[in-house]
Amino acid sequence: RMQSSRSKPCSCPSLKLREVASMYFTLVAAFLVILVVALQGSAPRQSDFPYKVPLDPQGLLELSWNVSYPEQAVHFQLLIRELHFGLLFGMSDRGEFENADLAVLWSDGHSSYFGDAWSDAKGQLHMDSQQDYQLLGARRAPEGLYLLFRRAFSTCDPKDYLIEDGTVHLIYGILEKPVHSLQAINVSALHGGLQRVQLLKPNISIPQLPRDMKSMEITAPDVVIPSQETTYWCYMAELPEGFPKHHIIMYEPVVTAGNEALVHHMEVFQCAADFDSFPRYNGPCDSKMKPERLNYCRHVLAAWAMGAQAFYYPEEAGLAFGGPGSSRYLRLEIHYHNPLVFKGRRDSSGIRLYYTATLRPYDAGIMELGLVYTPVMAIPPGEDSFILTGYCTDKCTQLALPSAGIRIFASQLHTHLAGRKVVTVLARHGRERQVVNADSHYSPHFQEIRMLKEVVAVFPGDELITTCTYNTEDRSRATVGGFGILEEMCVNYVHYYPQTQLELCKSAVDPGYLRRYFNLVNRFNDEEVCMCPQVSVPQQFYSIPWNTFNRDVLKSLYGFAPISVHCNKSSAVRFPGEWEKQPLPSITERLREPSPHCPPSAGAQPAAPVPLHLGQLRRD
Amino acid sequence: RMQSSRSKPCSCPSLKLREVASMYFTLVAAFLVILVVALQGSAPRQSDFPYKVPLDPQGLLELSWNVSYPEQAVHFQLLIRELHFGLLFGMSDRGEFENADLAVLWSDGHSSYFGDAWSDAKGQLHMDSQQDYQLLGARRAPEGLYLLFRRAFSTCDPKDYLIEDGTVHLIYGILEKPVHSLQAINVSALHGGLQRVQLLKPNISIPQLPRDMKSMEITAPDVVIPSQETTYWCYMAELPEGFPKHHIIMYEPVVTAGNEALVHHMEVFQCAADFDSFPRYNGPCDSKMKPERLNYCRHVLAAWAMGAQAFYYPEEAGLAFGGPGSSRYLRLEIHYHNPLVFKGRRDSSGIRLYYTATLRPYDAGIMELGLVYTPVMAIPPGEDSFILTGYCTDKCTQLALPSAGIRIFASQLHTHLAGRKVVTVLARHGRERQVVNADSHYSPHFQEIRMLKEVVAVFPGDELITTCTYNTEDRSRATVGGFGILEEMCVNYVHYYPQTQLELCKSAVDPGYLRRYFNLVNRFNDEEVCMCPQVSVPQQFYSIPWNTFNRDVLKSLYGFAPISVHCNKSSAVRFPGEWEKQPLPSITERLREPSPHCPPSAGAQPAAPVPLHLGQLRRD
Repeated sequence: RMQSSRSKPCSCPSLKLREVASMYFTLVAAFLVILVVALQGSAPRQSDFPYKVPLDPQGLLELSWNVSYPEQAVHFQLLIRELHFGLLFGMSDRGEFENADLAVLWSDGHSSYFGDAWSDAKGQLHMDSQQDYQLLGARRAPEGLYLLFRRAFSTCDPKDYLIEDGTVHLIYGILEKPVHSLQAINVSALHGGLQRVQLLKPNISIPQLPRDMKSMEITAPDVVIPSQETTYWCYMAELPEGFPKHHIIMYEPVVTAGNEALVHHMEVFQCAADFDSFPRYNGPCDSKMKPERLNYCRHVLAAWAMGAQAFYYPEEAGLAFGGPGSSRYLRLEIHYHNPLVFKGRRDSSGIRLYYTATLRPYDAGIMELGLVYTPVMAIPPGEDSFILTGYCTDKCTQLALPSAGIRIFASQLHTHLAGRKVVTVLARHGRERQVVNADSHYSPHFQEIRMLKEVVAVFPGDELITTCTYNTEDRSRATVGGFGILEEMCVNYVHYYPQTQLELCKSAVDPGYLRRYFNLVNRFNDEEVCMCPQVSVPQQFYSIPWNTFNRDVLKSLYGFAPISVHCNKSSAVRFPGEWEKQPLPSITERLREPSPHCPPSAGAQPAAPVPLHLGQLRRD
Repeated sequence: RMQSSRSKPCSCPSLKLREVASMYFTLVAAFLVILVVALQGSAPRQSDFPYKVPLDPQGLLELSWNVSYPEQAVHFQLLIRELHFGLLFGMSDRGEFENADLAVLWSDGHSSYFGDAWSDAKGQLHMDSQQDYQLLGARRAPEGLYLLFRRAFSTCDPKDYLIEDGTVHLIYGILEKPVHSLQAINVSALHGGLQRVQLLKPNISIPQLPRDMKSMEITAPDVVIPSQETTYWCYMAELPEGFPKHHIIMYEPVVTAGNEALVHHMEVFQCAADFDSFPRYNGPCDSKMKPERLNYCRHVLAAWAMGAQAFYYPEEAGLAFGGPGSSRYLRLEIHYHNPLVFKGRRDSSGIRLYYTATLRPYDAGIMELGLVYTPVMAIPPGEDSFILTGYCTDKCTQLALPSAGIRIFASQLHTHLAGRKVVTVLARHGRERQVVNADSHYSPHFQEIRMLKEVVAVFPGDELITTCTYNTEDRSRATVGGFGILEEMCVNYVHYYPQTQLELCKSAVDPGYLRRYFNLVNRFNDEEVCMCPQVSVPQQFYSIPWNTFNRDVLKSLYGFAPISVHCNKSSAVRFPGEWEKQPLPSITERLREPSPHCPPSAGAQPAAPVPLHLGQLRRD
């Protein structure tokens, strides 16, 4: 684990320096933090930086990091395999280079500097008045230059990115030419890109693994990665005939060496037990040659995305597979992301399942929370952040959960392309109690199963409220709910134990109230929205003239109208009871936004670049 | 002007200290800021603290202050005439003791301390982790103890109050018993109160005054202040017969010595020229004996409220009075605030008008912006911050303003009892350009005419948008627009030159669209809202069932429906043109919230109380 104490310069002069920040170029020499740059050194221990991800598609930049919850800080180790004249590394809301928070290493050809900077809405770089990316060291090794630096989750500097749970969009840019100052860097001309990671990995302890644990690899059979940017590859695998019930207790990625930057995410699905057999297949998922029946292989057994590590089930539970009533057929899906269109790359990546015949006390289950897939939940076009909410009501959990409750230990958030944020909150007696999972920088391109920091106990009578935020600024007609990629979903697949019959606890607005809305829009605006009963709900949404009143009233409708609740044993079988025109759960007490923990300002360094003794750059 | 440099302790130890704030009680002795307390001293010069206000009704606490715009800080001098065991002084959103930002002087009977504290939502006091009320000195004088301290406008500490333009609610509390620590102070048991002031007085230079300037006092004739909390006193005065046209170029308060804490505000109104004479009157404004005709004396000549200083017209303009077409009759109105119910206090306060016969280039005028007084603009009950907006449209200013434009130099905001915030913004070509006047802590009990920091130029085609925020949490039925004290207004009286014919530039929602709203509410909710045409708009509002949908849709209506514009020469005479069903001005660019200027943290002191050498307290 990195020690940050090394990095602290004398705080007294630095403090005074901050007051005269504008003069720093003349004064800085007196207060330099001279870094000892070891020109040779041993490779850092793997355990120091347990998480690793390539930043660029060629893997020239490789980021490793660890998370210190006691320090509320992330320690980064950035390996630069070919250093030219520096690089930018940082974070921004959705991976853009504007309004980004950046650590910059730059060289004028003679000297090199490191500094904390931010980019404004036009992409212009500025030195940050408070230096919160703290350089801890730089080290040359045969494989390249290692930069070590530290960043607190929250700096309380409004120019800085707040590192939160969920997705973080990392950005990088490579300086190909010398620059005389930070301000001279032209961000728009940089060779750069973005990488999504879950930076704040939960620090949960690894459960005890049993002695009789076995493993099974579900991997692609030496696939030639297609020379196109995006490929979803499908490969069918089978469990042995008569394979009895086991518990999957862990799984981990198997990524072919050299392809770390190409394998974007992988999932193993189990097929439906209704069919005796499934055809073999090994090819792109969108191929016309793909057998229709593969669409019935949708039950998630394992999911991995770039940057994720092994997934462990809690000690008390495992995911059942094998045995009677369970299909032998598995589908492996790999998303290859190949933006540089490499040709002829071969890949045998996949997922290694670890399982045991000694069944754990509980089967784990997966429950779907959020919105029903129905066009009655729609988003007007041109919205920058439109909110839809799905409810799992007290009535449903009262009926379907055991009195001892269930424990949610992992969650996978899901929307289609317009999704920007997803959050599920647990409420009890109308009071929000706990966030189940939240992602304020959610991307539909990065849907991992995430272990929760804390297991969430849900009891009969609790409510689970899932809220999705959408951006439809690039669309000209309404986006309705549905299965299509241009339709939308709002789903949280929660992984829990003990398994119950409740597979689906979701909602949608009452269709009768939506009809009243169409009527109201029609009358209020003197416009002809076709109300003929034979016209579909999507058609009615498409014909609405989207003025501010019609937008606002749709929001008001969704915040007021009763709901239809799907409290289902499977997608088609409801629990007995009245589920139509249910009242919206009323929340009387909201969770507070956590107030950011600001580091004492002594920890931050003044607004001056830190010179590095790297010698002449451009070594290639 | 106070020098703050004296107050800065060595910043190095204080910085380290902040890191170990929790240990401060043991460590503090090493880092004391020992204050030199002069036990005798000369009175401070008046000019050091030009603004003065009594805090309590007895005048035992007297606050003087100055404003340093270069330093972005206020320097306070608090005179405590009878010090017991300390006091609290501070600021909060609306004068409450919860969520307040406080400077506290307390004594355990032996030693005295000063510290920056905050109170939580339950009124519990906490030492602030950043000490932003900076003690500059303490001094005994024959009249009492003077405390001198400094506070930056903005500290960037989320626990601190942000000092903004407009009303500031000051609070004070007196410690009657010794306390052992700050945390031991029971805020709810304190003898305390609130005082409203405009803390950030504009620093505008005083215009040159002419040699022939004369003055005239309009003062109460030795009135016995009634022994009740609130009295509005009315006194009729007359200008001499044949008094020719003059320009009022300045006025100032005349407050009877000893009554500084009782005279809350005063206004001089000119009566309507339509009547040849007005009856004499000297008595309470709400008396049955008050002649009906006094209601026609409503044209404001001068207005003063506690804490305000002299009011100066700009050098180019004066307020016309006297001469043909102008009434000789004036009404002085004084609000006596006598919460301790003193008996037999005599008062001869009033306003001294300074005027000149040498007319200045321009007559000043007063224009009314905001909402028309009509019930169509209504606020649902139980709202904590409901917003209504009135528009002075481009079409009206195009028609009514001279091509050289007008200059607004002062403003008086006005609502009835539910008003909480008022702001007027100037927009040009749909872009917000400038705040004309804003008060985020507006109180209907503190309606001063305020000189603007900067004169605002308004040209033909500009829009003036006035937005009021209301709180109706204590009401059970809708609050409609109107003249009644329980009805509402949203008005900004702007003082400008050169005078034009435009007296009133206001708006209200189109009544036809409001009818559609009533219709829609009726149909959507399956409720019986009486739509019979003979039922008044207030009655229709009173019968609405106020669910979230009806509330939201009313907001949407006000944000969407066309408006009826009153672009009037006087309250009854419109400029020619079509003023019904006008489009709402569309604003494409909002003004940014100013980002607060945070002082370098070196300026603030660590979280430790500062001991004072005051000797044993309770000298009486």
